[in-house]
Amino acid sequence: MGFPGPLYPVNPKGGEILSLPAYPSILDIPGPVDYVISSIPAPAVPELIRQCGLKGVKLAHLFTAGFTESGEAERARLELEIRDLARVGGVRILGPNCMGLYCPATGLSWSSGFPQEPGPVAFISQSGANASDFVGTGTVRGLRFSKVISFGNALDLEAADFFGYCAQDPQTQFIGAYLEGVRDGRRFLRALQAAAQRKPVILLKGGRTEAGTRAVASHTASLAGSDLLWDALCRQAGALRVSSIEELVDVMVTFRFLPRPKGRNMVLVGGGGGTSVIAADDCAAAGFAIPTLPTDIQEQLRRYVPIAGTSIRNPLDSGMLMGRPDELVEVMQLIGASPAVDLFLVHMSSGTDGSGRYGPTPRDVARTLVRAAQAAGKPVAVALRSGPTPQAAQAANALWDACLDAGLPIYPSIRQAARAIAAFISYHEAREES
Amino acid sequence: MGFPGPLYPVNPKGGEILSLPAYPSILDIPGPVDYVISSIPAPAVPELIRQCGLKGVKLAHLFTAGFTESGEAERARLELEIRDLARVGGVRILGPNCMGLYCPATGLSWSSGFPQEPGPVAFISQSGANASDFVGTGTVRGLRFSKVISFGNALDLEAADFFGYCAQDPQTQFIGAYLEGVRDGRRFLRALQAAAQRKPVILLKGGRTEAGTRAVASHTASLAGSDLLWDALCRQAGALRVSSIEELVDVMVTFRFLPRPKGRNMVLVGGGGGTSVIAADDCAAAGFAIPTLPTDIQEQLRRYVPIAGTSIRNPLDSGMLMGRPDELVEVMQLIGASPAVDLFLVHMSSGTDGSGRYGPTPRDVARTLVRAAQAAGKPVAVALRSGPTPQAAQAANALWDACLDAGLPIYPSIRQAARAIAAFISYHEAREES
Repeated sequence: MGFPGPLYPVNPKGGEILSLPAYPSILDIPGPVDYVISSIPAPAVPELIRQCGLKGVKLAHLFTAGFTESGEAERARLELEIRDLARVGGVRILGPNCMGLYCPATGLSWSSGFPQEPGPVAFISQSGANASDFVGTGTVRGLRFSKVISFGNALDLEAADFFGYCAQDPQTQFIGAYLEGVRDGRRFLRALQAAAQRKPVILLKGGRTEAGTRAVASHTASLAGSDLLWDALCRQAGALRVSSIEELVDVMVTFRFLPRPKGRNMVLVGGGGGTSVIAADDCAAAGFAIPTLPTDIQEQLRRYVPIAGTSIRNPLDSGMLMGRPDELVEVMQLIGASPAVDLFLVHMSSGTDGSGRYGPTPRDVARTLVRAAQAAGKPVAVALRSGPTPQAAQAANALWDACLDAGLPIYPSIRQAARAIAAFISYHEAREES
Repeated sequence: MGFPGPLYPVNPKGGEILSLPAYPSILDIPGPVDYVISSIPAPAVPELIRQCGLKGVKLAHLFTAGFTESGEAERARLELEIRDLARVGGVRILGPNCMGLYCPATGLSWSSGFPQEPGPVAFISQSGANASDFVGTGTVRGLRFSKVISFGNALDLEAADFFGYCAQDPQTQFIGAYLEGVRDGRRFLRALQAAAQRKPVILLKGGRTEAGTRAVASHTASLAGSDLLWDALCRQAGALRVSSIEELVDVMVTFRFLPRPKGRNMVLVGGGGGTSVIAADDCAAAGFAIPTLPTDIQEQLRRYVPIAGTSIRNPLDSGMLMGRPDELVEVMQLIGASPAVDLFLVHMSSGTDGSGRYGPTPRDVARTLVRAAQAAGKPVAVALRSGPTPQAAQAANALWDACLDAGLPIYPSIRQAARAIAAFISYHEAREES
């Protein structure tokens, strides 16, 4: 991963930073400067922005916090002063009070732990912590990123600008966002609508409640706006709204990896009678039908499923996934051929007794699942609950990675899978209706 | 852990099992037999039960499945035959179609991975998989168990019997249950009510939905009953109803480890502005007030909290937990002294950037939390979100264990903590009103 251009450290004291000579000020740098990342104290920022203007800097990212969000009048005045200086000097501002940009294709990142390979997911975030959470959690869920933008107080560039950019960015196929508030509601709605017309947009709004709204004021000094208004705004724009980072990741994984099911008729496949009961409850509560399989299919299934400790209706309570892969493939082919079935959810546990034993290797299980998904000819999602012990977690991790490598959409619980897939189907239906 | 008495393997072919001589039948065993664990095929069970009666066996646990739940008339007839033989012979039946008993104090267990040390939590379950899930997940959450009973089809002994037992069992302080249906509703209500009057009872009902109800029939052949009826039944009996194993564990952890807060005024303490916003939203949505701290307290907090990147209202967005432990203790003492505050929720992340670095060791952080909780003089709960990388997960595990050792109630997410604690407070309020 190469950084796209020369890097110039700046420090009034001079010296060396990362083996590079530090310039006393931006004005002392010999070549042109496109982008400035600043983490100096707030009172020193106005002079920096003035110099950026003189130097012809295009964009300044202000990591610095402690402006309007502090609730202090003097600090709010300072923020306005910076905005005016930036306008005069023709400098665009990212922030203040933010982590800036993560763009793996050009080597920009605010964390050495983020993946270096790029992907199709963009994320627009008013919170650096939530953006880091989304990238971190999304990475282990198989997501990779085009551009992640943490923009904090949005003094200059704001959500509407970033939606406009991501809508036309050819590297971006899906857009996620965490927002706390917008200044110009009409402009934002236009940008959101334009983006959602071209790409799926999934939005998490901070400040749903009165307490959250007060926290927003302390965080990025945004006006959170009413929750109902945001609901209406998302509906009108055709964006999907979620209520947590986990849900945002679940839904994004679904858009990224699950083919669209034709309807909501789901077949549940997995071991454990009680687990199957709760699985059926969770999926039904999320809006899926768990239809009893047609009698002729039940008859044929009798060949594969022993009478004791299993069910051949639906849920299909069967341990054959681990022990008899060829039979699972045949069974899913048989069921998948029925027009009464739209999708499969296969659920597994890595075991809770600490043994973490699988007969076959994780890669074998993943391979079986891929074969079964192909034979079924219908979308297949996987829910893998990790056992609580380190051994079980290790077994789950290996199986998890094997499923990701195979391109299967995988979720940490049945309930999360059901809710995310239901949201995904509803999103498509709403777009067809409008 | 010693097994409470001699163990006699039985196998018609004789030979040795686990280095013990196998007897051809129960009738060939020389000494008395209290308890029989059977996993023979269903058609052979009636003869076994007849022999149990002749031998004076008190209880037979039938692991064997493939009875009424198979939907086959012949299998259902077999189950009734067993019931009649057991009645004639004076043998009580546990099951069929179940995992049986886990009682660490006497060395009985269906899994070598379950903890050997006992504890105050009983679990009554119609599903072996869900009981294993509850024990496995509960164990890493700090729970330990008195008696866990997996009883499947409930041919003879049923939920009412186990509630009656656990209500009077001196080793049991808290009762959890997973049920799919009961035969005698009145008898069950009486038993549930009597148990809930003496001990907290937390109940997960499988078959909330029509699809779940059909799955119940395939699993334990129970009549699931209407969901509204079960809601009313739990309310009338004073039991707390939950909708997933995870929620059951969360609530049980709260009963076990959190002192009762006087009210719902919560102070949120943790790092990350966006994280704090979502935390406030989640806690407010669960019914908590996140009151702005009184002005005099805000004034005093200015001494501790720098102006940039933090908030001194509430949520308290501060990284001092990791870096400046003494200040955290003073700050929580200051806030805890206010009558406007009923409880604290401290939230942390083990980092999502893969570094998993803490300044202090996990044990240091746990020690600081314990000191802060003591200084606060109000109940303190901890939400620790694990980072997605193995390094971060390892750091989180160490901190998790240190918090558990210190007796702090700990949860894997802010939302889960808020919901469980809200349910806990509502439970106590409902009991006071009735």
